[in-house]
Amino acid sequence: MLAGCIERVREKGPMIHNITNYVTANDVANVLLACGCRPVMSDEPEDAAEMTALCSGLNINLGTLNKRTIEGMLAAGRKSRELGHILVLDPVGAGASRFRTETARMLLRELSFDAVRGNISEIKTLVLGNGTTKGVDADQADAVTEEDLDGRIGFVKEAAGEMDCILIVTGALDLVADRKRCYVIRNGRPEMGQVTGTGCQLSGLTAAFLAANPEEKLEAAAAAVCSMGLAGEIAYRNLRKEEGNASYRNRIIDAIYHMDAETLEKGARYELC
Amino acid sequence: MLAGCIERVREKGPMIHNITNYVTANDVANVLLACGCRPVMSDEPEDAAEMTALCSGLNINLGTLNKRTIEGMLAAGRKSRELGHILVLDPVGAGASRFRTETARMLLRELSFDAVRGNISEIKTLVLGNGTTKGVDADQADAVTEEDLDGRIGFVKEAAGEMDCILIVTGALDLVADRKRCYVIRNGRPEMGQVTGTGCQLSGLTAAFLAANPEEKLEAAAAAVCSMGLAGEIAYRNLRKEEGNASYRNRIIDAIYHMDAETLEKGARYELC
Amino acid sequence: MLAGCIERVREKGPMIHNITNYVTANDVANVLLACGCRPVMSDEPEDAAEMTALCSGLNINLGTLNKRTIEGMLAAGRKSRELGHILVLDPVGAGASRFRTETARMLLRELSFDAVRGNISEIKTLVLGNGTTKGVDADQADAVTEEDLDGRIGFVKEAAGEMDCILIVTGALDLVADRKRCYVIRNGRPEMGQVTGTGCQLSGLTAAFLAANPEEKLEAAAAAVCSMGLAGEIAYRNLRKEEGNASYRNRIIDAIYHMDAETLEKGARYELC
Repeated sequence: MLAGCIERVREKGPMIHNITNYVTANDVANVLLACGCRPVMSDEPEDAAEMTALCSGLNINLGTLNKRTIEGMLAAGRKSRELGHILVLDPVGAGASRFRTETARMLLRELSFDAVRGNISEIKTLVLGNGTTKGVDADQADAVTEEDLDGRIGFVKEAAGEMDCILIVTGALDLVADRKRCYVIRNGRPEMGQVTGTGCQLSGLTAAFLAANPEEKLEAAAAAVCSMGLAGEIAYRNLRKEEGNASYRNRIIDAIYHMDAETLEKGARYELC
Repeated sequence: MLAGCIERVREKGPMIHNITNYVTANDVANVLLACGCRPVMSDEPEDAAEMTALCSGLNINLGTLNKRTIEGMLAAGRKSRELGHILVLDPVGAGASRFRTETARMLLRELSFDAVRGNISEIKTLVLGNGTTKGVDADQADAVTEEDLDGRIGFVKEAAGEMDCILIVTGALDLVADRKRCYVIRNGRPEMGQVTGTGCQLSGLTAAFLAANPEEKLEAAAAAVCSMGLAGEIAYRNLRKEEGNASYRNRIIDAIYHMDAETLEKGARYELC
Repeated sequence: MLAGCIERVREKGPMIHNITNYVTANDVANVLLACGCRPVMSDEPEDAAEMTALCSGLNINLGTLNKRTIEGMLAAGRKSRELGHILVLDPVGAGASRFRTETARMLLRELSFDAVRGNISEIKTLVLGNGTTKGVDADQADAVTEEDLDGRIGFVKEAAGEMDCILIVTGALDLVADRKRCYVIRNGRPEMGQVTGTGCQLSGLTAAFLAANPEEKLEAAAAAVCSMGLAGEIAYRNLRKEEGNASYRNRIIDAIYHMDAETLEKGARYELC
């Protein structure tokens, strides 16, 4: 099932518009190219809506957020909704500052997203108003662990229902949920947190997977998360002993480049709860 | 002849000012360093003209275009003309949105460029007003192929004459033309399109090659295009089986780093029409 | 002694806020992650002070300087001072343009920095008003060499006294000085200058090392400089013959990833003058 999702990504090669931060924009572009998609980046309010119209998905990311690009996000987001495109939010740093929290909330009010991807603290901030995001990382106290898994699954399903979108909460365990179903995903490596932008890349991939699989968005989101995590595992095995996080960064994108339906089917570790 | 061009790039090591997008700025800087040049990046209107004055070439790229940096492009571009420096335009996305098309046209009106590098759809947009650029990629219907080669060579020469500059149209085949002569270049690999920014890098290299070879700009532009394409071929041969587009990105710049006159002379595949 | 400094960086893993350029932001983030720290990037005036408050160090870098982010630098810098955090300045291009020189001077007037890192021309510009920075590189005429070493050590100590901060002057030889003492450091490779952003990375590391070692800032700064230079040496040894500056970029960060107290202790080459 997940296999079919990645096959359709490669068949259709959707064009994805990213309004994203300047720290990891290059990686987001290359990971989209790695799975056969075509990335476009434009954040100027006068340009963003028109560029979005050429694409089939829009990925909005709040890293290095500034006032000018918020206008671009709104303009492109509205055009994207009007055209029935896929719309994904990555609320980087929501819960860490008032500006980021309020911008994320405003975007959620003004636009209805197909999917929101963040760490648990960012998501708690948006749903409960009490996340305590540490810069751009989750608060350790919030971490999803095996012990409190049932409670967290319940929370994420409920939150997805309230926000009326797919919620993707990434961490040691990844949860991908809508109102009724939740994928618990155990792919990935802790070392992925030592590479800047693996979360941003996943948000870009999520937009691509949903755009290529609009009939089964939850499965598509789970396939994106499994693909990224599995790429992290494969890349880790490919690391030579002298290599560190900079080489790991490249090898993760390389692993997405080689990811096919069979590899994903065999390597994906998930359960549907 | 091309060999002499790259030798002079390494001998002179020109300083090149780039007003370029935040997706691929790092790659543009590193590819310029790879061939012995010194990159400078500055897009603030108050700063750009003064920084340009220290350089011998200016590379203007419309990726992630925004209103603030357009002022920087104009200020630096005018200073560059005043000082007789090399001036190159990469009209990323012209034909995809009104904002990009109009900005590219305005820059062409206000500044006279030594060279313009783009895909065929971008160039058709600027010359004929009817390009149908797909985001930042050429429309397949526009692609330069062996069948319509003579017609395309004629079109590009004529366009170069009208625009009074060197036109570099990159794709499966690359055309480098002025009013009278056209290099048809067959270096490169299709996989280069799976790395974000290879076009941006080539535009930076073009500025460097022209700045180091002001007496023979057409040859210098052809040498830049052959160097980039040949680097793509060498890098592809150096790829290990588990490597993908992220490693390819690095290996292309590495191949420019090692590119010398002899390698270029032997590997360049072109004809002058 | 330097060994203890890097151990504390890894133990404490300080969060470092970077207001930096879009050319090398990804590298700065990854090099901070490589030594166990957590990078945050935010340059929006409304957001920067609040993000800084979560961190223990702030690294201000003038590459791709623009008017909007200057406000962010001031807001974050003042908050950083108020909270007693570590504050580092990298005056990229001071001496190359009026805008950069004046902005660097204004920041030095408005904020008191713990450390300033630059090339010799940038530092001469700030202290003497007569540096002749070539774009973002030092003027060769200014270079620190073995011949004029005593004079330069005297100049840098005096300048550190006047500016009341630690001065880090990098080049063929690196000098790390306060009013009374100066480390002369002989780590590093000339090829590091062929990778964009190694200076920016060092400024980020400096903020991290000082934040983790607030009781011995001069030693911490020297440890950061030795670590970066030694990483350049190790990375150079790890390069394969077909690799160039793009691979070198990755291998330098990889070497920081593996840098431990023992490696640093054995490899650091410095004298205290």
